[in-house]
Amino acid sequence: MSFFETLADRIESTDSVVSVGLDPDPSRLPDAVADADLPRWAFNRRIIDATHEHAACYKPNAAFYEDADGWRALEETIAYAHGKGVPVLLDAKRADIGNTTRQYAEALDDDGLGADAITVNPYLGRDSLQPFLDREEKGVFVLCRTSNPGGSDLQDLELASGEPLYERVAALADVWNENDNVGLVVGATASEELAEVREIVPEIPFLVPGVGAQGGDAEAAVEHGLAARPGAEVDVGIVNSSRGIIFAGEESSRPGEEGTYFGAAGDAAKRLKKRLNRYR
Amino acid sequence: MSFFETLADRIESTDSVVSVGLDPDPSRLPDAVADADLPRWAFNRRIIDATHEHAACYKPNAAFYEDADGWRALEETIAYAHGKGVPVLLDAKRADIGNTTRQYAEALDDDGLGADAITVNPYLGRDSLQPFLDREEKGVFVLCRTSNPGGSDLQDLELASGEPLYERVAALADVWNENDNVGLVVGATASEELAEVREIVPEIPFLVPGVGAQGGDAEAAVEHGLAARPGAEVDVGIVNSSRGIIFAGEESSRPGEEGTYFGAAGDAAKRLKKRLNRYR
Repeated sequence: MSFFETLADRIESTDSVVSVGLDPDPSRLPDAVADADLPRWAFNRRIIDATHEHAACYKPNAAFYEDADGWRALEETIAYAHGKGVPVLLDAKRADIGNTTRQYAEALDDDGLGADAITVNPYLGRDSLQPFLDREEKGVFVLCRTSNPGGSDLQDLELASGEPLYERVAALADVWNENDNVGLVVGATASEELAEVREIVPEIPFLVPGVGAQGGDAEAAVEHGLAARPGAEVDVGIVNSSRGIIFAGEESSRPGEEGTYFGAAGDAAKRLKKRLNRYR
Repeated sequence: MSFFETLADRIESTDSVVSVGLDPDPSRLPDAVADADLPRWAFNRRIIDATHEHAACYKPNAAFYEDADGWRALEETIAYAHGKGVPVLLDAKRADIGNTTRQYAEALDDDGLGADAITVNPYLGRDSLQPFLDREEKGVFVLCRTSNPGGSDLQDLELASGEPLYERVAALADVWNENDNVGLVVGATASEELAEVREIVPEIPFLVPGVGAQGGDAEAAVEHGLAARPGAEVDVGIVNSSRGIIFAGEESSRPGEEGTYFGAAGDAAKRLKKRLNRYR
């Protein structure tokens, strides 16, 4: 089954398009997991326990796992999410050349991390992404218009053809989508751009980050981020929140009430699900 | 001491602008290291032993270390290169947003990997690179015009201003270079582009990949890749070969002659040094 079919099933069964970003910043982990062998894994496991009923997918960002223990925590996290029936999108923003990018693509293989989908950076062009694209059952989300302030530095540059660079990237991704496994990353903080990119690629699902801590537009994220796809009962796409869910407990928990900390993450995921569902 | 000062000293003391790419593809490692606890580290250690006299720097590509053992091998490799007095440029091509890219930048810290420099991808704009740029003593090589065939897909796009995207990236990198720690990655397979980028940024050192297995132009790499810098005795820049050096032993070694295998890597580094020095 292809990634987008898996994702469509998951969206239908959970009635949720929420992607929960698993970014376990070591400096923010609660005392309850500090003594674990792998604190990031202990944290993620409890977050997954608390949120999986509302999660269309999990999105660990590779930056939070770039050390030996981190990689082990990431492996455990992906396996555990799979055990709960939730697909995993590795937010790695990778791309390299030739034999090197083939190594990165192995993160999608069963004898690698076994992630179901990955984010990639288009700056190095098609051949840098080909080993990802060739894994037909896996999803490949190409960065298009990102949610950060500097996203405009390159992505908004006007081309001689009159379009901004990010629109050309959307059109290129459509060309690269021979296996029907390409998605796009378009930030919720760029709501006009969301509408414009949707016009260019009517059937490509988006990953829309930025509705949580970054304050993006939830209505635009749902309206333009989801795509009707042949054979799917529901529109397909995901809207991500990371810190707004996993660290929700920082606000609500009191000392000694560990359950409250992770319960708050579950509540935050459920609230975001409902908020997004208003527009579906 | 800043990275470019360190690099200038190293170029002077070794009379070499060779960067040795440490890309220990597991499928190509020789039998001599297969039984080691960490084969990639055992391999790199012997490569470093054989090549360090001719190495201006080492350039491990992060793609070859993305698992728990790999991360340990990378840590050991960087420490060992430092023990030999050779700076290390981590070829990671990273960039992400906000709190995430700060995590990636910790690869440059002593309590991270302790790399001396890193490659970064400009597609997400300035704020995605700021945590790297802020580490004033470290080098930050921004991808500009890469050596792969798809490098042209985005990088050569003509902007409304008339210039190709990669030239704009060079100009932006110059603006971002407030701490005098920015370099550019410009492939040797794009020799005209090398000359054009050099005109835009006269004082920025380049990392030039592609002269080895990829068959790029060594003369153009040296002529345009090195930059005269205030206070430096030598022009500063590096020309990388990975497979052409580290797997040179595949051609020359005979069964049972382990020394020959790594000796061939040392010979290949020395040959490249001499070839490049013809144009310095």
